[in-house]
Amino acid sequence: MLHLYTDASPNGYKVSIALEELQLPYQLHHIRIDAGEHRQPAFLALNPHGRIPVLVDDVAGITLFESAAILLYLAEHSGRLLPTGPARWQAIQWLQFHASSMGPLLGQRVHYQLLATPSLPAVSARFIALTEATFATLDAHLRTHTWLAGAAYSIADIATFGWTHIATVCGFDFSPFVHLSAWHARMAARPAVQRGIQIPEVAHGP
Amino acid sequence: MLHLYTDASPNGYKVSIALEELQLPYQLHHIRIDAGEHRQPAFLALNPHGRIPVLVDDVAGITLFESAAILLYLAEHSGRLLPTGPARWQAIQWLQFHASSMGPLLGQRVHYQLLATPSLPAVSARFIALTEATFATLDAHLRTHTWLAGAAYSIADIATFGWTHIATVCGFDFSPFVHLSAWHARMAARPAVQRGIQIPEVAHGP
Repeated sequence: MLHLYTDASPNGYKVSIALEELQLPYQLHHIRIDAGEHRQPAFLALNPHGRIPVLVDDVAGITLFESAAILLYLAEHSGRLLPTGPARWQAIQWLQFHASSMGPLLGQRVHYQLLATPSLPAVSARFIALTEATFATLDAHLRTHTWLAGAAYSIADIATFGWTHIATVCGFDFSPFVHLSAWHARMAARPAVQRGIQIPEVAHGP
Repeated sequence: MLHLYTDASPNGYKVSIALEELQLPYQLHHIRIDAGEHRQPAFLALNPHGRIPVLVDDVAGITLFESAAILLYLAEHSGRLLPTGPARWQAIQWLQFHASSMGPLLGQRVHYQLLATPSLPAVSARFIALTEATFATLDAHLRTHTWLAGAAYSIADIATFGWTHIATVCGFDFSPFVHLSAWHARMAARPAVQRGIQIPEVAHGP
């Protein structure tokens, strides 16, 4: 049995969407970050860094944190959501672009644009510019590709949508990036994506 | 033939170290960021986001950016530096921890602690605290593990060292994290690592 430990967050939604796409049975464990449950010993035993999501595969004896690692595991476990041949490396490349650039920068933008007190306009402006640069790169790629890896829908799309979804929840406008916006709309129309962003509950922003 | 496009940087060193460990023949292309070569059309055709490193495998017809994607490709290409079984997922998990947490946070710390003008002490202090939290997590793990994936030296170690090396170049002191420091010393003693951090040239810090 698979166990997913998660909360309403960009990183959590990536995994709940993937599990819904794959229609794999799993047990849901809601870790309430607002209540500090991610800092409790029971959760730190699963991820010593105290971050959701965590996936446990108790048949394989595997406990895994880091959403991109979990997405790679689910793709390998199921033989789906990751194409073969050169497109495999396109998918992994864009998965990593999301993991190292777009996601961390949007996380800092959420903090400095919406949460930090006192507000620091220069810092906020820098993270807005850096995130818009990642939107521009995705937009240029999606001008000529249906999905990030080309013809095949993959974990790269799911991971990237985790963050574009939260960008919309936070009111970050990426509508000028028309190809990215059209891709986001294609993603948002998928039934599994619509289910995934309600697990464990809907996000309301910071 | 493999082609590596790189400069003296944490992300570049990860790939030059891996290629030296694997003893794979490759052609080196020095992209001089100081001279703006990463913004020239010839390089943007390889990575539209304008970041090094890029690996081209002209036999397989693959062009790949994002250092963690390149490390996964080299491991799969060679059948080395990534263990099998459950340790495979430990290696990928810690590769992703470096890619999404430790690396991006150290990148922001370099900017706000060493480069930003005017200096913003509160922002610098926040990134110092966040990077030290990643050091603490690595340190606790390395207290009971020789390498990040356990007994097997892997691309997770190489990726993480790319950033601990630059931390030492920048004067970021992680010596209180004694297990992380001992692991860093084990890494730094490897001949391939010593060669890799001189390709394309030695880093002198920002």
